[in-house]
Amino acid sequence: MKKLCRILSVAFVLFNSNAYAQISKPVYTKATDLNIAGELTHTQNPYHRIDTVNYPALPAVVKRLLTQAAGKVVCFTTTSKKVSAKWCNSGSKPYPNLTAIANKGLDLYVKKEGKWQFAGVGRPDGQCSESVLVDNMTDGEKECLLYLPIYDEISNLEIGVDSMATIKPMPFPFQKRILVYGSSIVQGASASRSGLAYPARLSRLTNWNFMNLGLSGSAKMEPAVIDMVNDLQADAYILDCIPNSSDVVVRERALNMINAIRTAHPGKPIIMVNSITREAGFIDTKVGNMVRAQNAAIDSIAHTLIKQHTPDFYYIDTKGFLGDDHEGSTDGIHPNDLGFYRFVDKIEPIIVGILKKYFK
Amino acid sequence: MKKLCRILSVAFVLFNSNAYAQISKPVYTKATDLNIAGELTHTQNPYHRIDTVNYPALPAVVKRLLTQAAGKVVCFTTTSKKVSAKWCNSGSKPYPNLTAIANKGLDLYVKKEGKWQFAGVGRPDGQCSESVLVDNMTDGEKECLLYLPIYDEISNLEIGVDSMATIKPMPFPFQKRILVYGSSIVQGASASRSGLAYPARLSRLTNWNFMNLGLSGSAKMEPAVIDMVNDLQADAYILDCIPNSSDVVVRERALNMINAIRTAHPGKPIIMVNSITREAGFIDTKVGNMVRAQNAAIDSIAHTLIKQHTPDFYYIDTKGFLGDDHEGSTDGIHPNDLGFYRFVDKIEPIIVGILKKYFK
Repeated sequence: MKKLCRILSVAFVLFNSNAYAQISKPVYTKATDLNIAGELTHTQNPYHRIDTVNYPALPAVVKRLLTQAAGKVVCFTTTSKKVSAKWCNSGSKPYPNLTAIANKGLDLYVKKEGKWQFAGVGRPDGQCSESVLVDNMTDGEKECLLYLPIYDEISNLEIGVDSMATIKPMPFPFQKRILVYGSSIVQGASASRSGLAYPARLSRLTNWNFMNLGLSGSAKMEPAVIDMVNDLQADAYILDCIPNSSDVVVRERALNMINAIRTAHPGKPIIMVNSITREAGFIDTKVGNMVRAQNAAIDSIAHTLIKQHTPDFYYIDTKGFLGDDHEGSTDGIHPNDLGFYRFVDKIEPIIVGILKKYFK
Repeated sequence: MKKLCRILSVAFVLFNSNAYAQISKPVYTKATDLNIAGELTHTQNPYHRIDTVNYPALPAVVKRLLTQAAGKVVCFTTTSKKVSAKWCNSGSKPYPNLTAIANKGLDLYVKKEGKWQFAGVGRPDGQCSESVLVDNMTDGEKECLLYLPIYDEISNLEIGVDSMATIKPMPFPFQKRILVYGSSIVQGASASRSGLAYPARLSRLTNWNFMNLGLSGSAKMEPAVIDMVNDLQADAYILDCIPNSSDVVVRERALNMINAIRTAHPGKPIIMVNSITREAGFIDTKVGNMVRAQNAAIDSIAHTLIKQHTPDFYYIDTKGFLGDDHEGSTDGIHPNDLGFYRFVDKIEPIIVGILKKYFK
C-alpha cells in the first residue's frame, strides 16, 4: 500500500509538472502566418519597408534604412492570457540614444474598452531573443498590435500563446494611407519603444494609417527618393524631412519634391513640416543658426506656394512644439517621449483639421 | 625665391594647423580637481555613493548598486565654447530599458538666464569614451552641472575645454539635504538621460538638494539598510521604496524604518510615498494585484500613523501621477520621460508644500 501510494504520488507529480509545462510553455506561430501590416508597399521580405532592388539609384544608406522595420506592426487576435515572442535582429550595436527595446525590441498594444492600450515590451537580449511581453491577462479574445523595432532589421519573428489559446490574423485597424517621409524623428528616435514613434501614436489617436518612411539622417529629397516616394500610393503625403536637409539642399530640392508629388498624385494633400528647433540649438549657436537657415529656406518656398494658392498644399510651423523647458529631448537632437508627446499634442489637431476635409 | 616661397608656405601651413590643433584639441582637467557633488556622504572613491566597507551586513546587490554614480554631479565654471569629456565605465552590458546615454553616459546643464538648461550629452562608446558634450557656446563664463551615469560605475572622468579657456570648481548650487531612498524609479529608470531622473529634476526645480539613494530592485528596508540610512545626515527623508517591497515586506519593515528614522533624526520630516501604479498592472492582473496589495499595506501603516498625529510624518498617494493614457512608461514598470514629467508635475508641489514649513 505504501509502495502504491509512492508510485501514485510520483505519477501525480509527473502528470502535474507535465500539465504545468503544457500550460506554461508557449506555442509559437510565425508572424508571417498572421497579418504583418503597416507596409508602405508589398515587399518580398515582409519585414522590409521597400524592395530596394527596384530602386538601384537610391543612396546606399537609404537602402539599408529601408530594411529596418520602423512602422511595421503584426496584427492578431488571441485568447491567450500570456503573449511571448521569439525574434532575431541584425548583429548591429544599439544606438546610444535609444533603448534597446526601441532599437531592437517589440512593443505590444491590446484593445481595451475601445482604445489601444500599452500592454508590454519584448526585451532584446543578443542577436536572437525570447521574451514574455505580457502575462495574466483577463479571459476573452484580445485584439493585438505588435510594433516591430524602429531601428533594426528583424527576422524569424514568432508569437507565443498558451497551448489552449487561439491566435488568428487580424485586419489592420487603421484606415487610409498617410505617408510620412522624414528624418530619424519620423523613424522614431528617441521614443523609448516603437509604439511611441510619432506616426504610430498618430495612427492610434486618429484611426488613420500614418506610414513610417523615416530615414534616419538621410531624408534629403534626392531624385531617386522622390521617384520612390511617387511610386507609393497614398491618400496624403507628409514631408517632415527638413532636419536632414541643409538650407542649400532645401532650396535645391524641396520644390522639386512637392511638384513631383503634385504631378504624380493630383488632388492628394501634401503637408510640409518645418524642422523642430533642435534643443541643442538653444545652446550651440552653430546648430541654432543651421536650423534657422533650414527653416528660412522652407518658409520661403512654402509661403510662395501658399501665396500662389497652390491647391492641396499645406505647411506646418513646428516652432515651440517641444515645449519651452528644454527637457523634451534625449540628446539635443531627438525628442524623448516627453518631447514627442508635446509634438503630437500640437501637430495632431492641425493634421486632422487638414485631412478631414479630404477623408469624408 | 621659388624655394623660399615653398618653405614659407609649408611653414605657414604647419603653423596654422598647429594653431588650429591648439584651438580645437581640448585641454582636459580631472573631475576630481573640480567639485564632484551630490554625495550622500564622504566616500573614498568620489564616484561611489557609499563606502560599503563600513556596512558589511548590506545585501551584496545593494553594495554593488552603491558603486553606481546615480545623483553625482560635477560642478564647474568655464569660459570654453566647447565642452568635451573622457571617462570609463564598467564593462557591463547596458540595460534594454535604458538608453546607453542614461546608463553609462553624461548629461550637461548650463545656467542660462538664471535657469538650469539642458546643454548636451556624453555618448558612451565601449568601456572608455570621449565625447563632445556641447560646442559653439556664446562668450562668457558658464556655470555647469554635469550629471554622471545613473546605472553604472564611472572612473577617470576628465572634462575638456578650449586651450585658452578657464575651468574652475563651482560650489554645488542646491541647498539643504533631502534623502530620497527608493527603487529603480528613484535611481532614474527609465529617464533618457541622467539629468531627467526625478530627484535631479526636483533639485533643479526647487534649488533644494534631492539626494539619490535609488537602489534598483533592492529598496527593501532591510535592517542593515535602515542603519546605513540613519547614518546619513539629512534635513528630510523621502521613502519611495514600496515598488520593491512585497506587501509582506512592507508590513514587516516599513514601520521599523519610519520609527528608526524618527528616533535617530527627531524633528526631521519623513515623507512616505506609495507605489506608482505600474502600467503593466492595468493589463497583467497579477501585477495589478501585487501593487494594490503593496499599497494597501503601506496605506494602513501610514493612516494609522496619521491618525495617531505622528509628528513630522507625511504620506503621498501617487495614484494617477503617470496620467491616464498608459503611455508614460518604457516597459510597463519604469516611467519614461513623459511619465516622469507627469510624476514630478504632481509630486513637486506636494513635497514643496511640506518642506517649506521646515526650510524657513
